[in-house]
Amino acid sequence: MLELRLVQGSLLKKVLEAIRELVNDANFDCSATGFSLQAMDSSHVALVALLLRSEGFEHYRCDRNLSMGMNLNNMAKMLRCAGNDDIITIKADDGSDTVTFMFESPNQDKIADFEMKLMDIDSEHLGIPDAEYHAIVRMPSAEFARICKDLSSIGDTVTKEGVKFSTAGDIGTANIVCRQNKTVDKPEEATIIEMQEPVSLTFALRYMNSFTKATPLSETVTISLSSELPVVVEYKIADMGYIRFYLAPKIEDDEDMKP
Amino acid sequence: MLELRLVQGSLLKKVLEAIRELVNDANFDCSATGFSLQAMDSSHVALVALLLRSEGFEHYRCDRNLSMGMNLNNMAKMLRCAGNDDIITIKADDGSDTVTFMFESPNQDKIADFEMKLMDIDSEHLGIPDAEYHAIVRMPSAEFARICKDLSSIGDTVTKEGVKFSTAGDIGTANIVCRQNKTVDKPEEATIIEMQEPVSLTFALRYMNSFTKATPLSETVTISLSSELPVVVEYKIADMGYIRFYLAPKIEDDEDMKP
Amino acid sequence: MLELRLVQGSLLKKVLEAIRELVNDANFDCSATGFSLQAMDSSHVALVALLLRSEGFEHYRCDRNLSMGMNLNNMAKMLRCAGNDDIITIKADDGSDTVTFMFESPNQDKIADFEMKLMDIDSEHLGIPDAEYHAIVRMPSAEFARICKDLSSIGDTVTKEGVKFSTAGDIGTANIVCRQNKTVDKPEEATIIEMQEPVSLTFALRYMNSFTKATPLSETVTISLSSELPVVVEYKIADMGYIRFYLAPKIEDDEDMKP
Repeated sequence: MLELRLVQGSLLKKVLEAIRELVNDANFDCSATGFSLQAMDSSHVALVALLLRSEGFEHYRCDRNLSMGMNLNNMAKMLRCAGNDDIITIKADDGSDTVTFMFESPNQDKIADFEMKLMDIDSEHLGIPDAEYHAIVRMPSAEFARICKDLSSIGDTVTKEGVKFSTAGDIGTANIVCRQNKTVDKPEEATIIEMQEPVSLTFALRYMNSFTKATPLSETVTISLSSELPVVVEYKIADMGYIRFYLAPKIEDDEDMKP
Repeated sequence: MLELRLVQGSLLKKVLEAIRELVNDANFDCSATGFSLQAMDSSHVALVALLLRSEGFEHYRCDRNLSMGMNLNNMAKMLRCAGNDDIITIKADDGSDTVTFMFESPNQDKIADFEMKLMDIDSEHLGIPDAEYHAIVRMPSAEFARICKDLSSIGDTVTKEGVKFSTAGDIGTANIVCRQNKTVDKPEEATIIEMQEPVSLTFALRYMNSFTKATPLSETVTISLSSELPVVVEYKIADMGYIRFYLAPKIEDDEDMKP
Repeated sequence: MLELRLVQGSLLKKVLEAIRELVNDANFDCSATGFSLQAMDSSHVALVALLLRSEGFEHYRCDRNLSMGMNLNNMAKMLRCAGNDDIITIKADDGSDTVTFMFESPNQDKIADFEMKLMDIDSEHLGIPDAEYHAIVRMPSAEFARICKDLSSIGDTVTKEGVKFSTAGDIGTANIVCRQNKTVDKPEEATIIEMQEPVSLTFALRYMNSFTKATPLSETVTISLSSELPVVVEYKIADMGYIRFYLAPKIEDDEDMKP
């Protein structure tokens, strides 16, 4: 028996919107520690890892480990029926092939339950080793989303060289430089750069733009870069956990993309 | 000679938006008592009845009964040219084949008149008998619109069982229960349920969603149900009248639609 | 060497949005007096003239006259990457075949530079003689935009008879009369009519609607009419200059368009 009650139901709505462009079907894994998901995108280029820790739920009952395969578009359709202030409870009986999402309005005058069929999905769980990163940038998530969107109008790939974002396309080239900035009114507006050594990597903007669908989940984003490793783009989810996107750099020679 | 001056011109704009999805061409009937319309939708499944009583107009002159056939999309195009604060006057000469809509801006610095050709439309006026309903639900219109929209993302039909709305589709099932709630700050936020006997009826959501186009006309909606009768979905129009939608229930066996 | 620094960068963004529907490619002419453009629309019916005087720039360096051919859609794509509060600097080296747009965020924590290829564009500069107009109407630009949009839903052409706008289409006819109105709270809300003699001209609404893309640049628009001349639709740009649209009237007999 599974029963997870999330007072801030809008978080779950935002999580779905953040990942459903990248992933169609995925297994949600429930254990005593939390509600998590790990999935490759359909072209097997990017990886999403989600964790919502059990402590973040008002009520968290998970009698035994359970892996529930869901179609994320169908799940998103149902979650869109929850109001932004609704409490969401995820319920499943042991051995059942359905999951129920219950939405309670704040004043309790409307209670909805949406029952969705589960799917069997093959997936292997990848171990993601902890790594040392050469450069870590923490910046406002809206700023990062804006940069990815802007560069997309010029080119297909972004080259991240510490804190310089560049692209080139048919109509010209673009460079955007972000400066460290700690003297801000609110800590979430800061741009903080920790650089061990310079690193320059090129990524497909299409994926970066998909990752920024998670922007509503967090005011800040952390981007971790190493020359030998996939980039990690992390959005923290309140006090509950995180959503992390991993993307391997393009290995074409950097000079090739200069116009 | 017909001359109807409506200070709150936006009401007429909203009326058109409420019915033009359902009905293409219709006769507006003007008499000493008011400006009214009765029309079936193009598939002859739903009926719309509109009444704007003469007392609601600032000036109401209707020398003899007049039935004016109008294309509602063309009429809506013209009314969309009226500002939301404009005064609207409907004018027609006896025997004329045109109607004129005059829009005056509140400070009188713009006066527009739009002249539209009338059409000959065959229509029979149905007598709608007064009926006793087994269950009457009055609830916030925005809430009703939200429920119809939400359920449409799951299935095609809604089953209304007193105050429970249900649907089922390929991806799962949904139930939404509304509770009586009179302890609200504003009377229009209340949900009030008068039930003589339980009643369970199934309707096509497509029509229900069309009816909810009338939501801007009124903060509340009243839904009247009887097992032998079409449902009535009524939106009051300020102190002037109402718009009522009638829809026959689907007669398929209720069990058939459970997945 | 060219270096033009515009603190209110959003003006340049709005200028581009105002003209790019009408003109695809155009030469921007830079001289000691200012940054200007003159271009016919692709069907050679309307003419756009833009002037941004050098005094309006915080810094204006233009060593020698320069004509830079740009694709306005590509330029608009790049300018859309500037924030509304960004400072925009236009830079070009003598003899270079590229132009650089630099965007600085107000707090200087983001600096972007977008380099765009220039084009060779043949164009002849028309001399526009000063003229006396029979009727000049100054009115709120939003009001003018609204009228053009409203009339487009009914017909294809607008007949401007002093301060009466008319059109006719398949579904009927429309007339909108604007009255002189100087007793307003803010001067930009006034409608002021200077009429030497009555004038009635017919124009294609498609172009008028294109001109109203300049509405965000100015709260007022000035329309100058003479029976022998193209209409001039002028939007002032802050204290810097103007954008003017010229359109020849339709010469078909006025009676022909009455339904």
